[in-house]
Amino acid sequence: MPEEAWLAEKVGRLLARKGAVLVCGGMGGIMEAACRGAVGEGGLTIGILPGDDISAANPYVKLPIATGMGIGRNIIIVRTARAIIAINGKYGTLSEIAYALQLGKPVFALSPWVEVPGIRRVATPEEAVDAALKAIKLSG
Amino acid sequence: MPEEAWLAEKVGRLLARKGAVLVCGGMGGIMEAACRGAVGEGGLTIGILPGDDISAANPYVKLPIATGMGIGRNIIIVRTARAIIAINGKYGTLSEIAYALQLGKPVFALSPWVEVPGIRRVATPEEAVDAALKAIKLSG
Amino acid sequence: MPEEAWLAEKVGRLLARKGAVLVCGGMGGIMEAACRGAVGEGGLTIGILPGDDISAANPYVKLPIATGMGIGRNIIIVRTARAIIAINGKYGTLSEIAYALQLGKPVFALSPWVEVPGIRRVATPEEAVDAALKAIKLSG
Amino acid sequence: MPEEAWLAEKVGRLLARKGAVLVCGGMGGIMEAACRGAVGEGGLTIGILPGDDISAANPYVKLPIATGMGIGRNIIIVRTARAIIAINGKYGTLSEIAYALQLGKPVFALSPWVEVPGIRRVATPEEAVDAALKAIKLSG
Repeated sequence: MPEEAWLAEKVGRLLARKGAVLVCGGMGGIMEAACRGAVGEGGLTIGILPGDDISAANPYVKLPIATGMGIGRNIIIVRTARAIIAINGKYGTLSEIAYALQLGKPVFALSPWVEVPGIRRVATPEEAVDAALKAIKLSG
Repeated sequence: MPEEAWLAEKVGRLLARKGAVLVCGGMGGIMEAACRGAVGEGGLTIGILPGDDISAANPYVKLPIATGMGIGRNIIIVRTARAIIAINGKYGTLSEIAYALQLGKPVFALSPWVEVPGIRRVATPEEAVDAALKAIKLSG
Repeated sequence: MPEEAWLAEKVGRLLARKGAVLVCGGMGGIMEAACRGAVGEGGLTIGILPGDDISAANPYVKLPIATGMGIGRNIIIVRTARAIIAINGKYGTLSEIAYALQLGKPVFALSPWVEVPGIRRVATPEEAVDAALKAIKLSG
Repeated sequence: MPEEAWLAEKVGRLLARKGAVLVCGGMGGIMEAACRGAVGEGGLTIGILPGDDISAANPYVKLPIATGMGIGRNIIIVRTARAIIAINGKYGTLSEIAYALQLGKPVFALSPWVEVPGIRRVATPEEAVDAALKAIKLSG
């Protein structure tokens, strides 16, 4: 398992242990790794899918939402989340980071691919989850 | 409580007892009544919200999804649901019924407001929930 | 050419002669017939496409808009139009009619498929276009 | 007029002179400056609006499209455009750049705010328009 998948799974696991719901794009790769981690700890996972069919979700998505909007669904992930943890990722993740910062939502990044002003860098999954949950608590 | 709210609450209660997840628009009125019923039985409720803020959901929505698309979010409700139970409702419900039938999803209606070919009429909340769950099972 | 395509082409032609811009879903069938009529009179046509590629528009769409939202793009057609002329049509058209009436936009129907309260029936393309343009003028 | 508005107006003017249609978000600031430039040269301008009302477009939008999706409409701008010219801009522009690069569309940037791999930097409005039109021709 590549480094970033390991980070994602760890983030998922930690979120679930804290009772947080994981919201993501619901597909494979990093998203699947994070869901697998959360579900392994009995957590709840929401997948906001690009396609129009809930059966396309990765097997660890407990609640698939079918938007039929393709990558246009990224805005819904961001609007639904209270804090964003970005793990590596390329252009798709970058669109989510941009939307989140435009909406004033906290974004924590593990090994970000591009430098964007406003992102808060974190060094470990533990730090990412702690910072995200703290930010949520502060925002009410 | 008006007749239709009573029907919606009953539908929510019955769905939760059968272990089904309730997906709706997440706002007040009929949607809130259905969610209240489901939550009263320990069920899970998803609200696909028109606005961009999860705090606008009715208090019985366990998992709010913020689309920011206004009534354009109706297509996401329909794509996410495996069967539709329509309770009265006017134009908003009609757009969902139209989308559902266009996508080939089963639509069961309690006291429908307009006659649309393809809708299957049901007489009671019990019949609605039984028919919907049966339709889901048949579709895999 | 079936009756309804003939009606659509006539509506397109009349709208263009009056200087109105035709907005539609941009695909084949009724939509293509209406665009062909408008373009034949030198009119402007906008196609709000379901897909993510502007090249999928019918050849008479002058300005294709690629939404990538599938039939979820129907709400954008309705929000963009100032009056709606419905020609026959089945579930897709019905979702647009429902949205338009919910938003308080005037809907004129030539040979409607279902009876929906709020639709204003018209008998000919001439009557449809006259009524639609009059409604637009009144709304400012 | 600040530097970036001047750049945008110049880009709009040059695009219109070449017969290109300008697609943008339809609101104020940079978008309005670009539309003003295009319309001043008799060009066509499309505004893909965040709101649900076409009357919110800036006065130089010839054809307003009302999405009602808020900043979620950025994906539609990107899908509709054949090439993207980014002028300064902050998070909103960044989400469009990210989407465009994810979809493999050419992105030309005048004074970009963040460095994103895949953006092609240009020094003047003339260079931006020449490069964009050349990219469109090459892509068919």
